[in-house]
Amino acid sequence: MRFDRIAVVGVGLIGGSFSLALKENKICAHVVGVGRSPANIKLALERGAIDSAGADAATAVRNADLVLVSTPVSQFEEIFREIESNLKPGALVIDAGSTKRDVVAAARAGLGAKIAQFVPAHPIAGAEHSGAAAAKPELFRGRRVVLTPLEENSKQDVETVAQLWAAIGARVSRMTPEEHDQVFAAVSHLPHLLAYALVDDISARANAAQLFGYAAGGFRDFTRIASSHPEMWRDICIANRDRLLNELHSYEKKLKEIGTLLENGDAAALEKLFADARAARERWLNGGYE
Amino acid sequence: MRFDRIAVVGVGLIGGSFSLALKENKICAHVVGVGRSPANIKLALERGAIDSAGADAATAVRNADLVLVSTPVSQFEEIFREIESNLKPGALVIDAGSTKRDVVAAARAGLGAKIAQFVPAHPIAGAEHSGAAAAKPELFRGRRVVLTPLEENSKQDVETVAQLWAAIGARVSRMTPEEHDQVFAAVSHLPHLLAYALVDDISARANAAQLFGYAAGGFRDFTRIASSHPEMWRDICIANRDRLLNELHSYEKKLKEIGTLLENGDAAALEKLFADARAARERWLNGGYE
Repeated sequence: MRFDRIAVVGVGLIGGSFSLALKENKICAHVVGVGRSPANIKLALERGAIDSAGADAATAVRNADLVLVSTPVSQFEEIFREIESNLKPGALVIDAGSTKRDVVAAARAGLGAKIAQFVPAHPIAGAEHSGAAAAKPELFRGRRVVLTPLEENSKQDVETVAQLWAAIGARVSRMTPEEHDQVFAAVSHLPHLLAYALVDDISARANAAQLFGYAAGGFRDFTRIASSHPEMWRDICIANRDRLLNELHSYEKKLKEIGTLLENGDAAALEKLFADARAARERWLNGGYE
Repeated sequence: MRFDRIAVVGVGLIGGSFSLALKENKICAHVVGVGRSPANIKLALERGAIDSAGADAATAVRNADLVLVSTPVSQFEEIFREIESNLKPGALVIDAGSTKRDVVAAARAGLGAKIAQFVPAHPIAGAEHSGAAAAKPELFRGRRVVLTPLEENSKQDVETVAQLWAAIGARVSRMTPEEHDQVFAAVSHLPHLLAYALVDDISARANAAQLFGYAAGGFRDFTRIASSHPEMWRDICIANRDRLLNELHSYEKKLKEIGTLLENGDAAALEKLFADARAARERWLNGGYE
């Protein structure tokens, strides 16, 4: 498997790491990168993540065999519209969006009759650092990538994209876009929301300085994802808001239950809940849910 | 500063690490340990965290110059009652409880006229691993220890205890028990409750295996504290439940606000909240709240 020319639209952590990984594995000859921030594009060039800078997405995809769209998801539809007419027959379009129902809808709207060329995917490889500065070729090693293929996709194209992600170290699996958005609302989008909420709640207090002054390692890890990219997470939350609201309401119900246990001083029930949660987490860490 | 004989009641992560640190710094000659689990006491002996095993707390404190109580906080009152009559005049009693109002009340009830000998403290050095197996002499290095001295304490005794914690690397500060319990309800007790709640909520689902199967690094860090000791956290939550309920209700209000932003599709307000939270967290990580 080899691509002569790849266009990466959005050269951040994901786009930059993808390029670096492809280069390290000699899967591509030339990468043209497109981004909104000239400083970031300059850095991507300096770091060798891209070989040239495209003026815009439409120009960059001309003659490309593979296009990766890795911007925040709210920009996808416009990007798909921009690239559609310049897209080479047979070229593959892939993405790294953290939500999938909206991305598929954006692709249908933007790519029109060329929708079969788009094989959607979500690499589970976020980090609290963003931009080309944080990109690294090993980012996807051992990480999951979820493909949510379309009925229009050829079997061959889906297989090629699966092999591409696997070639840079990812563990590839498949879901429907609906299933994907439910699963990630629960295990990714909600935790991000909860972490942002806690930091926001504390930083608004009159004694915020004192509170942060005594926050320790538990707080640091709990809130690590509250250092994630605000624009990216705004888009994810808005794109998946129906599923995210379901998860939020389920969690609010759980907090209400726990609040009642506290009010009643029900030590035994609290301990059982804590012990069950710990056991489930240990089981997860030990691969018991794989 | 040197103690000939130290009694450690509860030789877990904190008690074991305290002993190891004192030995490493040659601050004590002999440590007698007391615990409920014979296997754990055996391990503490093997690891050199304690030099002998006491039959019970009352026996162990006889002739001790310093007593550390480092069990879950619900056991404190009984332990104070047990040791009171055998406590040597001039011996210092210290603790490692994560809550302070209840611990002070337990000490007043249990130690009676000897209350002046007790200098309360909370070392901020939790971890998701517990027991003597996890103990290490460097645990307190660079960590905060909050003293909540009593009006009955002599200035000299408070100073000695502050120096003792500082000698094993801790950064010592002081608060009232009330202030302590409010601060830690916000930055420690609530996050633990939230992490336990999320894992519990997910593990109860019919598709728990699938959900955990796609949980990644963000989820792992967010829930790390849900692997904490269930009995210890039961006691903390019960002991500090009024302050914890205040924090829980404040957080529930914040989640309600965020839910409304999601329902309204208010992307700008969500992004601002995320960006403000990220900025506050970065400021904290960079020492801006010290």
